Amino acid sequence: MNETPGADSFAELKRRQQVTDPHSEVVHFPASEGLPLDSGAVLAPFSVAYQTYGTLNADKSNLVLVCHALTGDQHVANPHPVTGKPGWWETMVGPGKPIDTDRYFVLCPNVIGGCMGSTGPSSLNPVTGRPYGPDFPVITLRDMVRAQARLLDHLGVEQALSVIGGSMGGMQVLEWAATYKDRVFSAIPIACAARHSSQNIAFHEVGRQAVMADPDWCGGHYLEEGKNPRKGLAVARMAAHITYLSDRALHTKFGRNLQDREEVTFGFDADFQVESYLRHQGMSFVDRFDANSYLYITRAMDYFDLAADHGGVLANAFAGTKTRFCLISFTSDWLFPTEESREVVHALNAVAANVSFVEIESNKGHDAFLLHEPELFDTVRGFLSAAARRRGLDDASTGS
Amino acid sequence: MNETPGADSFAELKRRQQVTDPHSEVVHFPASEGLPLDSGAVLAPFSVAYQTYGTLNADKSNLVLVCHALTGDQHVANPHPVTGKPGWWETMVGPGKPIDTDRYFVLCPNVIGGCMGSTGPSSLNPVTGRPYGPDFPVITLRDMVRAQARLLDHLGVEQALSVIGGSMGGMQVLEWAATYKDRVFSAIPIACAARHSSQNIAFHEVGRQAVMADPDWCGGHYLEEGKNPRKGLAVARMAAHITYLSDRALHTKFGRNLQDREEVTFGFDADFQVESYLRHQGMSFVDRFDANSYLYITRAMDYFDLAADHGGVLANAFAGTKTRFCLISFTSDWLFPTEESREVVHALNAVAANVSFVEIESNKGHDAFLLHEPELFDTVRGFLSAAARRRGLDDASTGS
Repeated sequence: MNETPGADSFAELKRRQQVTDPHSEVVHFPASEGLPLDSGAVLAPFSVAYQTYGTLNADKSNLVLVCHALTGDQHVANPHPVTGKPGWWETMVGPGKPIDTDRYFVLCPNVIGGCMGSTGPSSLNPVTGRPYGPDFPVITLRDMVRAQARLLDHLGVEQALSVIGGSMGGMQVLEWAATYKDRVFSAIPIACAARHSSQNIAFHEVGRQAVMADPDWCGGHYLEEGKNPRKGLAVARMAAHITYLSDRALHTKFGRNLQDREEVTFGFDADFQVESYLRHQGMSFVDRFDANSYLYITRAMDYFDLAADHGGVLANAFAGTKTRFCLISFTSDWLFPTEESREVVHALNAVAANVSFVEIESNKGHDAFLLHEPELFDTVRGFLSAAARRRGLDDASTGS
Repeated sequence: MNETPGADSFAELKRRQQVTDPHSEVVHFPASEGLPLDSGAVLAPFSVAYQTYGTLNADKSNLVLVCHALTGDQHVANPHPVTGKPGWWETMVGPGKPIDTDRYFVLCPNVIGGCMGSTGPSSLNPVTGRPYGPDFPVITLRDMVRAQARLLDHLGVEQALSVIGGSMGGMQVLEWAATYKDRVFSAIPIACAARHSSQNIAFHEVGRQAVMADPDWCGGHYLEEGKNPRKGLAVARMAAHITYLSDRALHTKFGRNLQDREEVTFGFDADFQVESYLRHQGMSFVDRFDANSYLYITRAMDYFDLAADHGGVLANAFAGTKTRFCLISFTSDWLFPTEESREVVHALNAVAANVSFVEIESNKGHDAFLLHEPELFDTVRGFLSAAARRRGLDDASTGS
């Protein structure tokens, strides 16, 4: 309603702030302790929201840092404050789980650029007192990792027992291992790559264009305008979601099954189950995610190219590493095919790193890292236990 | 401008009509000779626009019917009247080419539902005197083929020497062979399948949602409103275009190369060549294609399931066939993987049909059928020559 733009703006902003104010711990770094970014800008002040599970032991040696994926957040193993759904990795993290919170202290921060409490484009710009929107600086995965390192400093943790994550989380793991060699005792990059491929950039660009094509995006100023580019963001999510599954998974799950009907309707309703499923994925996503965060985080992934950052030679990124690596890929993942993990393994081999690599047979596509995959659980549990033993931890010395 | 809706509507309609009035032959079937549709509706009157190349011989036995793909049209081997670009299959069709217009009479009709002269959603609805828009009946590939059969009747051609096409064109070839067994002497379905997969339906649904999310779609009535959902259609085209290429093709063509710059800009411009390329694909497409046609034709493809139309057994579709088949697929085509052509081959084997099958090694993805693929050209040339000889044609009896 044009008569009361302010009221609408603030109503929307309030709704947003509920989303961006989950029940997480938040560390606020003051303007004097800003975050230098790869772009040359400085993000100041900035905040990092995070969840923890388990107990940090006396010598602070049992921390497992979980890095979340593009549309994930810090709510790894508790009900999500917005959706009420279980945490995104409850199969992996918890008492007696592969990442056993009886033994390890698990930390998951929301990435900067995100919308769940860490500073991002929906945060207030201290210069204007309005949401950053499109004035938020473009960030990189290294910037995200740099913010996480600051969080570890704040918690007084010098070295993580392990850094683990899938997809964009896995890319952050690689960035951690490259940038903070002494702070990563072991690393578990899952379903990822050392650079974002041309095809992946292409899919991201489609998503961004879908958001920006929505007039309710308002040039990025939708919060101030009291609007929300729901339709555009839903289309972006739908396109991306297809890439998270495999052709086989879609065939098995939906095939050409019709949705609650015997015959096609000769219309544009969701005749097929797969259409209904995708529409639901799109619409439920926009309730919990900020459109500008989607733009900024996809951009950060596109920019990721670890070899380019190290003179064009991927092995250089890992020169001198003492980190123990365990890479995991899935056979049906066409977003981050096994071949791309293998390239990282070759680079690690070239610097004589301690590395193991498991390609898991799965027809679930990229999303396999989030799903019930016993071989994934066994691999993580085993590797992590071995790392803990090597680190000098036993059951008595951990947090339980 | 709300003051003069009429003027705007007609200006847009005129622009549209230039697009829908290419320099093609058009057969107008009067209301008394309407086209019965699978939905139960009747399209009346209806028109079919077409291009021809070469000369029909005396006994009308040298016709090669080319079926075009989703966003193709009848301009196979002449400059496109809207874009001015070469015909989409000039590598394949012409004097001395694999489909040799010195020997064969080549016919390509625009599909019904299209926007290049055949009746489609941008045509005038005789009931209202306004463009059909969303009141156009939902059509199937069989409806398209039925309209083409009417065109063959009109031209006095009982049997095509061959029916050939790639992608949706190949699906029409299969439909032709199933529905009009005596009218297809030989059939060359390329890069296609006997049904649209779950993943393919999913990508189409994303495209449709992108169009419908554009407020300028106006519930399908954009022509009457003097608008055009350009942004939505461009996003749809961008998403689809990725599926036409292979990961490898994108990597080879673009990799992570930057567009006219040395460094990334830390912004949302098209830093990468692949982004610039996709944006161009999207924007140039909307100049030549109608958004509602895109909805209707993708829907027709989604509905295609030849086995379901024949009691759930694909072989039944071809029972009693005397057609000679040559199926062609490409190794890197992930939209219509070789496996789906093989299923058609198995069905044809089950009815002891005359069938050959060639899987061509190519890294160009689905679009390989449109590109320079010497093995494709050799296969089509050889198969077609053999069919012509078997049909009793030699050089003297053909149109040249």
